[in-house]
Amino acid sequence: MIAVLKSGTSDKQIENLTSWLKAQGLDVHISKGSSHTVIGLVGDTSKIDADLIESLEMVDAVKRISEPFKNANRKFHPDDTVINVGNTSIGGAQFAFIAGPCSVESEEQVMEIAKAVKAAGATMLRGGAFKPRTSPYDFQGLKADGIEILLKAKAATGLPIVTEIMNANHLPMFEDVDVIQVGARNMQNFELLKELGRTNKTILLKRGLANTLKELLMSAEYIMAGGNENIILCERGIRTFETYTRNTLDLSAVPMLQELTHLPIVIDPSHATGMARLVKPMAMAAAAAGADGLMIEVHNDPAHALCDGPQSLTPDKFAEVTGAVNKVLAAISED
Amino acid sequence: MIAVLKSGTSDKQIENLTSWLKAQGLDVHISKGSSHTVIGLVGDTSKIDADLIESLEMVDAVKRISEPFKNANRKFHPDDTVINVGNTSIGGAQFAFIAGPCSVESEEQVMEIAKAVKAAGATMLRGGAFKPRTSPYDFQGLKADGIEILLKAKAATGLPIVTEIMNANHLPMFEDVDVIQVGARNMQNFELLKELGRTNKTILLKRGLANTLKELLMSAEYIMAGGNENIILCERGIRTFETYTRNTLDLSAVPMLQELTHLPIVIDPSHATGMARLVKPMAMAAAAAGADGLMIEVHNDPAHALCDGPQSLTPDKFAEVTGAVNKVLAAISED
Amino acid sequence: MIAVLKSGTSDKQIENLTSWLKAQGLDVHISKGSSHTVIGLVGDTSKIDADLIESLEMVDAVKRISEPFKNANRKFHPDDTVINVGNTSIGGAQFAFIAGPCSVESEEQVMEIAKAVKAAGATMLRGGAFKPRTSPYDFQGLKADGIEILLKAKAATGLPIVTEIMNANHLPMFEDVDVIQVGARNMQNFELLKELGRTNKTILLKRGLANTLKELLMSAEYIMAGGNENIILCERGIRTFETYTRNTLDLSAVPMLQELTHLPIVIDPSHATGMARLVKPMAMAAAAAGADGLMIEVHNDPAHALCDGPQSLTPDKFAEVTGAVNKVLAAISED
Amino acid sequence: MIAVLKSGTSDKQIENLTSWLKAQGLDVHISKGSSHTVIGLVGDTSKIDADLIESLEMVDAVKRISEPFKNANRKFHPDDTVINVGNTSIGGAQFAFIAGPCSVESEEQVMEIAKAVKAAGATMLRGGAFKPRTSPYDFQGLKADGIEILLKAKAATGLPIVTEIMNANHLPMFEDVDVIQVGARNMQNFELLKELGRTNKTILLKRGLANTLKELLMSAEYIMAGGNENIILCERGIRTFETYTRNTLDLSAVPMLQELTHLPIVIDPSHATGMARLVKPMAMAAAAAGADGLMIEVHNDPAHALCDGPQSLTPDKFAEVTGAVNKVLAAISED
Repeated sequence: MIAVLKSGTSDKQIENLTSWLKAQGLDVHISKGSSHTVIGLVGDTSKIDADLIESLEMVDAVKRISEPFKNANRKFHPDDTVINVGNTSIGGAQFAFIAGPCSVESEEQVMEIAKAVKAAGATMLRGGAFKPRTSPYDFQGLKADGIEILLKAKAATGLPIVTEIMNANHLPMFEDVDVIQVGARNMQNFELLKELGRTNKTILLKRGLANTLKELLMSAEYIMAGGNENIILCERGIRTFETYTRNTLDLSAVPMLQELTHLPIVIDPSHATGMARLVKPMAMAAAAAGADGLMIEVHNDPAHALCDGPQSLTPDKFAEVTGAVNKVLAAISED
Repeated sequence: MIAVLKSGTSDKQIENLTSWLKAQGLDVHISKGSSHTVIGLVGDTSKIDADLIESLEMVDAVKRISEPFKNANRKFHPDDTVINVGNTSIGGAQFAFIAGPCSVESEEQVMEIAKAVKAAGATMLRGGAFKPRTSPYDFQGLKADGIEILLKAKAATGLPIVTEIMNANHLPMFEDVDVIQVGARNMQNFELLKELGRTNKTILLKRGLANTLKELLMSAEYIMAGGNENIILCERGIRTFETYTRNTLDLSAVPMLQELTHLPIVIDPSHATGMARLVKPMAMAAAAAGADGLMIEVHNDPAHALCDGPQSLTPDKFAEVTGAVNKVLAAISED
Repeated sequence: MIAVLKSGTSDKQIENLTSWLKAQGLDVHISKGSSHTVIGLVGDTSKIDADLIESLEMVDAVKRISEPFKNANRKFHPDDTVINVGNTSIGGAQFAFIAGPCSVESEEQVMEIAKAVKAAGATMLRGGAFKPRTSPYDFQGLKADGIEILLKAKAATGLPIVTEIMNANHLPMFEDVDVIQVGARNMQNFELLKELGRTNKTILLKRGLANTLKELLMSAEYIMAGGNENIILCERGIRTFETYTRNTLDLSAVPMLQELTHLPIVIDPSHATGMARLVKPMAMAAAAAGADGLMIEVHNDPAHALCDGPQSLTPDKFAEVTGAVNKVLAAISED
Repeated sequence: MIAVLKSGTSDKQIENLTSWLKAQGLDVHISKGSSHTVIGLVGDTSKIDADLIESLEMVDAVKRISEPFKNANRKFHPDDTVINVGNTSIGGAQFAFIAGPCSVESEEQVMEIAKAVKAAGATMLRGGAFKPRTSPYDFQGLKADGIEILLKAKAATGLPIVTEIMNANHLPMFEDVDVIQVGARNMQNFELLKELGRTNKTILLKRGLANTLKELLMSAEYIMAGGNENIILCERGIRTFETYTRNTLDLSAVPMLQELTHLPIVIDPSHATGMARLVKPMAMAAAAAGADGLMIEVHNDPAHALCDGPQSLTPDKFAEVTGAVNKVLAAISED
């Protein structure tokens, strides 16, 4: 960590600051230039609150040199993490197609979609049993019953299942769940992250709506600091001023995260765009950008399909998406 | 709720949609104009997912006419809510000065600050025992010991205490806490909100970093839907592109929220600006905008003060702030 | 345009509003529902200020049904616009590779890069002669001399040239320029747009840093309203809270714009990411998303290359990008 | 300027970089720490592109120590700038009330409003003759005729006038205008700023919708670099995710800018909130935060008033605002 002091800082002030820093267990290197003084801090600076130091009257700027994430950092773990999930894996050669309905509504619905997406190339089944909703009056999911339905679909198809947790007290219900999802609104629910760090479950961690990639990695670090290194990162769109799309899919997150971390990265084009007809081009783009997988909403609800017509991402449309994505993957693998 | 259909929607499609909507228990009113058809939905539309309807091919736009929040809505509760907190209150004639250290560090520290801020006009004492930190390696607070220290300061000074909760399982520790704070990162931790709705504690709910006022009110609604109506809303700065200040304090939230809801609103200029020297002008501005109170960070840590010099918000500076704010309050009360 | 009135609006108020609206030349259709009244406005609503109507006490919401852009609207012009530029074209079968240095520095530099990018597959040459800089003290470009240099490179290679205009008074200097670029900061410089609308030059219009797609299309509309329909839209990254990348490339803009407009869309991954090593994956992603072309910064400055080493996008690296993009294009053309 | 090099940078690379930097005319100070090397640059670093250096493979971070604005910088000009405008002034003891209609519509309208706002305490008259509109089909203002009308109102009332310029070629029409406004969308129209720098007119420079305070000051610097130091800065709301208000008024900009610059700062609560009923509380808050003045939209259009009812900011309401603001100003002047 580097602190740049304002010109005009007195020797007495510098001495006060350095003795305080040394008391925190750090080595302090002072470099006085003609126009400024730079203090270099060596040691475990992770305990130091950069904001506090930056708020000091005498300090012009503070810059962390080392990334504050360690377990997630590619520098200390150069090889890609490959996570085995049931009969498949993610992060290595296998491109993951995670597909299924937004909400688990009935056994019939999930069973039908599960079979259809498997036939279309899905490698995992997703479905929401606990639903985080902005309004307390909106449907909150089938909860435990929803998980039971997913497990039946897993038994029938062999597809590993991915479903969201909202409360660490619910963990016993997730015993047979293959991948536990942490939603965007819980990305900085640190108490939940800590509890998940004490399990050995694979965690799919979604980026928060207005969070940076560094914050996403720090949240992964919360889980990893507890000993659980099975983490899949998920970009699902960030909040911007654009209104035609629900959120803005940040695909540059894919190569950027791959440089910063060894963890696998999947893209959720369904939530990011909010429009089924944008899923195919964005899925292809995600594959071209180097993502490790996709998470796509597929439904077969007849009432909905009735209204929705040609634009819904039905299992048939999903098969088109996997086909197109596989062509892109083949093209880039030659590269 | 109004749905505007695209021109060219067939009668068959309209019929399909209306029968689906009626099956959800709604009355449907159709108004065909020369250029468009508008469907008005009457009944309990809170169960209807506006996003789902908007995503239909045939739908141009969906607009909720009634606000989705009910218990928090001023329309149904015109009078200001006044909440009694220990020997003081908030939301009525009494302007609240909530002051104290960011983190509880020691009994000596808290006791000294508590006495000093009380002398300077504080009506409640704040202090963090559980600290939400972006990094798992940063100091996470004194936890239960921190709450014990706050309770001692309460006993010594009579000041009601305000402190943050991060995990509903910790509720037993908060039995003697007067006001339980929900931090910005937990504003949409719906499971926590639901649990707090089952208590009768006063909740201070902070707006999330990139959340809208409607989302803040929907989170208040989660608590109120459980039966707990003792909620204080807190604006603490939102994330913008500005970098000189840590966040951007949205003071228009004060009159805007007062129009929308009957709940009291406090402003936290310390977190919003990240700079002690901006606290005084922003506190005065918050009072002028009509806020019901302020939440201000005050510390007396000698090591910190050593470095910080004239810019720290020491108890003395806090007394200057309360003095200036009281002048503004006196001026606007004449109005 | 639809205006939804608040419940409790009196007949007298409705009458006042409708007579005012009729005085603006509109047909007014009133639909009274049990819970609300909807006013439908038919006629040339483009002259009506939606904000003004929404600000009325009695109005709950206003919604434009028809898009406010007409000339740029795909509804009225279903076929893709193909623009001929020198010996090439954009918007049809030909994928555009626009490459060159950020700033024109010298004839030698531009000539060398022009030849190299042409050999690597570029279809147009870009280079900045007038440079919009945040600081008045930064290098502002070679101006007229820069354009002369670009024209020499065009003469030598046959590549059409793309360069930015900042002032309509400079138009005479752009007589032999093939594509005139409007930069992000001038996207809503309406006076400049109007002047460009009076020319028949091809305009490459960059999306502003915090502008929506609708605002981009309205700016295109300014040019088209003057009679000039030769417009290329360019997504170059938008401002978000992410700091690892300079901006956030919004690739969902590609399929979204293609639905809304018939104008061609190019992607600038260099400015969007600010990092040469992210250009290749984002270029591939842009092609997979369906973009009509790419705009990529290529330099050969020896001093810069000296420092920059393997990470600069030298002509060699650019050849890798075109190769990889062409593989993606081949893969998706089969689809 | 400080550049922090990555650990592992070779001596050869450091030498290459330092010789390149020296060739740009800078003194280079190297400080090798145990974990990193810091390069300090002394001299006129304003010519150095920090982004370019940060993009180098070997560079971890770049930090400007000195602010890039000079003429606008309070460090070099500690006293507040006071600008004389007609018979009044701004930036000193006199608080400015700039009031008038958004658009100039007719002589009768402007004359009536001018008299009314003068009676209510306005010190300057504002009105738009050239209107920047998102759509080319919206009313673009009365242009030259609008300025003539404003000048008549000035002659009748003695109020100095403030009106917006969109095109430097229009400058001759602004000869008798007292304050020339640059709108938010033109804040980075550098060619316009340069031209205004060559005049001696007072410029009111509005902050762009998504611009930082540093960018605002750099735009002021463009004007000042040309020799014109008569600049009033204006905060008029920034784009955020909030939708109840049109924009978000950033009042912390007031004390923050006052620390950074000596230029006067006015607040426009009308555009920031988009709601007349929020103008009064935000005007009072702006005064309490220390602003040098307010810019408020006042209209008397009878047709509009008919619809608008109690919520419009009529001259009567404006008189209420000036009264309330004056009470706040009196209260804080005692402080």
